[in-house]
Amino acid sequence: MHRSRLSTLLIDTPEAEADASAAFWSEALGATVSSPPDEPQYLTLHGAVPSLDVAVQRVGSAARLHVDIETDDVDAEVARLEALGAVAESSWQGCRTLRAPGGHLLCVIPLHSDPELFASLARTWP
Amino acid sequence: MHRSRLSTLLIDTPEAEADASAAFWSEALGATVSSPPDEPQYLTLHGAVPSLDVAVQRVGSAARLHVDIETDDVDAEVARLEALGAVAESSWQGCRTLRAPGGHLLCVIPLHSDPELFASLARTWP
Repeated sequence: MHRSRLSTLLIDTPEAEADASAAFWSEALGATVSSPPDEPQYLTLHGAVPSLDVAVQRVGSAARLHVDIETDDVDAEVARLEALGAVAESSWQGCRTLRAPGGHLLCVIPLHSDPELFASLARTWP
Repeated sequence: MHRSRLSTLLIDTPEAEADASAAFWSEALGATVSSPPDEPQYLTLHGAVPSLDVAVQRVGSAARLHVDIETDDVDAEVARLEALGAVAESSWQGCRTLRAPGGHLLCVIPLHSDPELFASLARTWP
């Protein structure tokens, strides 16, 4: 038995435009911006949406959005999503990137939000 | 003075794969699926994220995600976002599509969520 929830919306932005992107979304959504310690590739937009982390991510690819699903058991969640038709793409620092039916990327990430928030919002899977 | 908030995450999916996409995200997020009356192009994922509408949209383009900002004054919100650097792309049924700095599409849409939810979550702009 494990749990998961849609936890994060990433605004993946080419490196050269990431600061302009974060400045725009910050003003557009009325959110403050800061990077987590030791993770300058993320520009977190605080308070943009309740109970959802929203961040600009500096990437080497074209502009896109993707979502993260956080879970207390990454292997079990990846297996569950693969059984639903998702296909593994890559793995990086404990995060697993999958491609969903329909063509969208998603990442499965270890639990990172407040444990009480996670417990109140996550679904439990057999 | 007007108000706005990030209200919607659209999972834009090529027509031929939209039903498979909705089936996947429904199971992945533990959400039920239905289309609004007279809007079969949307496959709403109920309860996927608190206070955020999430829906698969059947589109003629490649797979992508985009967000909607709902507002009680579309013209004022578009003008505000354009002043922040967004560029108008198109207009359709009262919705205005803009491209944000960094390259992401967003739509500005008329108020559609519960008025009390909107009042509690929207930001007020001068």
